[in-house]
Amino acid sequence: MAVIDCNSYKVYVNEAWGKLQTIIDENSYSKIGVLVDENTQNFCLPIFKEKLNTDQYIVILIQSGEQEKNIETCKVIWSELLEHGFDRHSLLINLGGGVIGDMGGFCACTFMRGMDFIQIPTTLLSQVDASVGGKLGIDFRDYKNLIGVIKDPVTVWIDDDFLKTLAQRQIRSGYAEIIKHALIKDAEMWEEIKVIDNLDGIDWAPIIERSVSIKRDVVTEDQFEGGIRKILNFGHTLGHAIESENLYHDDPLLHGEAIGIGMILEAYISKEMLDLREEDYIDIKNYILRIYPHYRERLNNEENILEKLLKDKKNRRGMVNFSLLKQLGDCAFDVVPDQSTIIKSLEDYKNH
Amino acid sequence: MAVIDCNSYKVYVNEAWGKLQTIIDENSYSKIGVLVDENTQNFCLPIFKEKLNTDQYIVILIQSGEQEKNIETCKVIWSELLEHGFDRHSLLINLGGGVIGDMGGFCACTFMRGMDFIQIPTTLLSQVDASVGGKLGIDFRDYKNLIGVIKDPVTVWIDDDFLKTLAQRQIRSGYAEIIKHALIKDAEMWEEIKVIDNLDGIDWAPIIERSVSIKRDVVTEDQFEGGIRKILNFGHTLGHAIESENLYHDDPLLHGEAIGIGMILEAYISKEMLDLREEDYIDIKNYILRIYPHYRERLNNEENILEKLLKDKKNRRGMVNFSLLKQLGDCAFDVVPDQSTIIKSLEDYKNH
Repeated sequence: MAVIDCNSYKVYVNEAWGKLQTIIDENSYSKIGVLVDENTQNFCLPIFKEKLNTDQYIVILIQSGEQEKNIETCKVIWSELLEHGFDRHSLLINLGGGVIGDMGGFCACTFMRGMDFIQIPTTLLSQVDASVGGKLGIDFRDYKNLIGVIKDPVTVWIDDDFLKTLAQRQIRSGYAEIIKHALIKDAEMWEEIKVIDNLDGIDWAPIIERSVSIKRDVVTEDQFEGGIRKILNFGHTLGHAIESENLYHDDPLLHGEAIGIGMILEAYISKEMLDLREEDYIDIKNYILRIYPHYRERLNNEENILEKLLKDKKNRRGMVNFSLLKQLGDCAFDVVPDQSTIIKSLEDYKNH
Repeated sequence: MAVIDCNSYKVYVNEAWGKLQTIIDENSYSKIGVLVDENTQNFCLPIFKEKLNTDQYIVILIQSGEQEKNIETCKVIWSELLEHGFDRHSLLINLGGGVIGDMGGFCACTFMRGMDFIQIPTTLLSQVDASVGGKLGIDFRDYKNLIGVIKDPVTVWIDDDFLKTLAQRQIRSGYAEIIKHALIKDAEMWEEIKVIDNLDGIDWAPIIERSVSIKRDVVTEDQFEGGIRKILNFGHTLGHAIESENLYHDDPLLHGEAIGIGMILEAYISKEMLDLREEDYIDIKNYILRIYPHYRERLNNEENILEKLLKDKKNRRGMVNFSLLKQLGDCAFDVVPDQSTIIKSLEDYKNH
């Protein structure tokens, strides 16, 4: 049980649900909605309903999947809010993974210029990543999170009971952000987790708490991504490009799977450009390839990946900025590698 | 020439354009865009280009009109920004009336989770109203400004040269907000303007400055519309409902024309419920009917207007809150009239 203070709001990990009920009751909302997809409707909503007094809550259902995270789905959500008589004194509870949280938060913030929302992330990925930082939004024309805003929720409620509803692949996807948080900021945590070979039967709560705290520390230093916050992008510059490129694949990569690849590639570039030691790079690569499959064929469209890189919203004046490891637990930002180094990193991954 | 300080940004009225050039240059934007519609492209862009060094600016053109202020047009604007390589270090200059400012501002704030924007309002309405307060957004499913955010621009640049490009009807529309600002906050200004019978040949700059300053005072007291800011809604509760109801009329009412009607109706309700004197009500009604046509037939769909009222985003728990005059220059908010009083106000207007 832990409370992580993020200035304007708090993240609760495995706290008693009565606390959440109190937060909701205190605000006397005019209406309360719960946004779910068909998965969280089946697996998470029953848990949620058992814990809270939800007779008056209106359930808003959307289809699951990253491909639904677009403006058309926002129109569906806004329409539902309108039809059910929501107003700016209402509350939307986003019960689900990153798509639900990002898009539900965006819809809440923009409906009547802003109503309250509470995030209840139900995947490991959204618990350790999307739950802190206030980034909300949707994909647009193949670009991830191109449209969005930054705004904090009323509160974030994490319960590791929800993780029991997840497939192993989903757990693995979330774990990538835990690895990232350790690599950029906590070398000691890296030493502890890199011996974990099996993600079954892990007591996630303390790991989530530590991971969320790292992110909180970074984000509170820099809310609008002017500086240090950029270190959270480690693994994400190439990772996002690969994820975008694979969005319409028969079997799209999950976010964390793409970030796993991205971290290997960017650790390679870190070794080439900064002082990351060769042995630490090998360690990172081997560990990630022990947890995740080796997705060689996903990097075949090298040119498309490089083109996607140039459209990354973190760019300035067409330069592609990377966040790279100076050493374990220490990350630099705004580093611009040559295209040849980027290509070498892709080749190194494919030839492993 | 005046500078009105709005805390995080400034509104300039008839200042030398070199000042605006300096503000833009100081920020070293990666790209600069100018959003126009076909009217401001023809009539305002030439003035703008003459004043500023705009060789590198990218012109983004949309169709004019309130009916274009929707999510489909946002998609066009976002796509243009994407295709021209804009990023979060770019600038969008919104050159036009309220639609351009509200929608351009919304698109800028949400593109890559927020790029800078400058408002150059070119209509009297947008100069005195939309230029302060940070309200941005679009219409959705017949509801005005249902989707949006509150965010301040880098700066607001007002030049009354642009007013020469306007039709008389446009000037009259903007004038409604000037009347409103006087009625809610400045009885002395009301005495001065209520003798103006002819809106031709007026020196607008000092009136704009005074009007913007009233709005600034109200808004800075209450940025998120929790209290006093609601007085700006005087005339707007019924006015918006009438405007929405007339949106698809062959000849839709302009915003200020609807607000003119709304102010008469709400002054009537003020007289019935609060202490506004009968003679002041008569004065307000007669003056507004001297400036604007008497739109009797626009109020025929009484039931639709009442239904629209209930969906107003200022509502809480289905109660329709009005901002009403206690006396000239003094306005109350969160007053809830009976439906019968609302209907009487409509009848009184129609029977005048």
